[in-house]
Amino acid sequence: MKTVQTINDLTNFLECNKGKTIGFVPTMGYLHEGHLALLNMAREENEIVVASIFVNPAQFGPNEDLDRYPRDLERDTMLAAKAGVDALFVPTAKDMYPFESGITINAGELSNKLCGESRPGHFDGVLKVITKLFHLVQPTKAYFGQKDAQQLAIIETFVSAYNFPVQIIRVSTVRENDGLAKSSRNVFLSDSERIEAVHLYEALSIATETWKKTKDVNEAIAKGKSHIEQNTSGRIDYFDVLTYPNLKANIENAEQLLFATAVFFEKARLIDNIIVEVKEV
Amino acid sequence: MKTVQTINDLTNFLECNKGKTIGFVPTMGYLHEGHLALLNMAREENEIVVASIFVNPAQFGPNEDLDRYPRDLERDTMLAAKAGVDALFVPTAKDMYPFESGITINAGELSNKLCGESRPGHFDGVLKVITKLFHLVQPTKAYFGQKDAQQLAIIETFVSAYNFPVQIIRVSTVRENDGLAKSSRNVFLSDSERIEAVHLYEALSIATETWKKTKDVNEAIAKGKSHIEQNTSGRIDYFDVLTYPNLKANIENAEQLLFATAVFFEKARLIDNIIVEVKEV
Repeated sequence: MKTVQTINDLTNFLECNKGKTIGFVPTMGYLHEGHLALLNMAREENEIVVASIFVNPAQFGPNEDLDRYPRDLERDTMLAAKAGVDALFVPTAKDMYPFESGITINAGELSNKLCGESRPGHFDGVLKVITKLFHLVQPTKAYFGQKDAQQLAIIETFVSAYNFPVQIIRVSTVRENDGLAKSSRNVFLSDSERIEAVHLYEALSIATETWKKTKDVNEAIAKGKSHIEQNTSGRIDYFDVLTYPNLKANIENAEQLLFATAVFFEKARLIDNIIVEVKEV
Repeated sequence: MKTVQTINDLTNFLECNKGKTIGFVPTMGYLHEGHLALLNMAREENEIVVASIFVNPAQFGPNEDLDRYPRDLERDTMLAAKAGVDALFVPTAKDMYPFESGITINAGELSNKLCGESRPGHFDGVLKVITKLFHLVQPTKAYFGQKDAQQLAIIETFVSAYNFPVQIIRVSTVRENDGLAKSSRNVFLSDSERIEAVHLYEALSIATETWKKTKDVNEAIAKGKSHIEQNTSGRIDYFDVLTYPNLKANIENAEQLLFATAVFFEKARLIDNIIVEVKEV
């Protein structure tokens, strides 16, 4: 595996591998099994695998956890190499954002709900870095975890609306044995919070089961919320049911429904979701 | 020459020409010698030349001339074929904009001056269509006329800031014998306006000469404006001197200066500009 630290080195690496299919896994590092699932799928489906590690300042708000976002490049490098990555791109913020153009990408309506509501500008920053990374890597396929469902919905919509020549691959959420979704932020949970945190997924399961039985969204949300409130010390940021990938509250004629929640714990805000195929119900 | 009307047909054409260098000339049609200069340069520098004709609704304001923008596809097709274009892409608005994603690109500060001031949203629409066209055509080089200097500055900045894998080539303005810049909108001039219109370029020349002698921007602008006011029936939209490509009013340390003007005539708004290399002065 080659670790490339500059855009120039990345371009040289890609030049040497011209014509090959490229699977791309953009990450913020501190790799866990969720990332490894993305890397494994990219490895299976492409001739070349490029992964990036870049804690993107543009997607963190002024009061968010940019500075204390967990980092471990040595361990990440080892894990990426083991997963069969060909090139690990680890640019600096200065290399990615050498100047401020004043030209912005606005995620719009899709970002005014769920995680976007408490993280203004977050998805604009995601689209900014994804646009740059897609242009730099020019991947055949790019892999994203379903755990960040709103991010996935926005990127799928963006790629389709702006004709990016890349195929977006949705990869299922990887979970701990007890059901907690793998996340780099899980390290911030206290021991007791870690035990409580399993109830996010349980609440989502209760909500989807309720909806399947009753088709009553409000009842599904109420039951899910109440489960979290009764079983955790966390504060619910949102618990919502929207169409996927349009993220509309009016779920009539939806083909897929997103059941999603976010909960604030002492030092971590956790998210999780379940996507339900409506036609299968 | 192949005329391709759908994105699918374009993709098929490009698939058949994989690995070749592609020169791309995006236009709104009604081709004149300015466009032909772009096509000729693209023909010289690339294995494949793709041109597009698309009167982009996204870059016209509600009170602008979208409906009466001049069109002549038959003549354009003949001219493009003669210029050696390999594929002429003429999509419909429905093919280019099949749905509204709500995700927008905002040209920002660079668009709040010169033409952008009287055409709010214009450059956002330009960046929207250019992003889509660049992703669809994936050109090696794309050719733009210097006549639309603000557009060129914004696209150069956008491509650099967002790492589009394309080289932007600036092509000099092509002029009529008397100096009037070629433009699709010149057909809207009355006979007397057509005679007057030469004074846009003359005024810009007077302003650049004044600046070279005196280094006094205000004097240069005043002389240029006064020349247009005394010699035409048009109403000046702007006459300005800014740095290029940053489009800043503070010209200290600038390497290039843009002298630009726009003038409203009865049925047409004309623009023209001169870019001066500061170090050469």
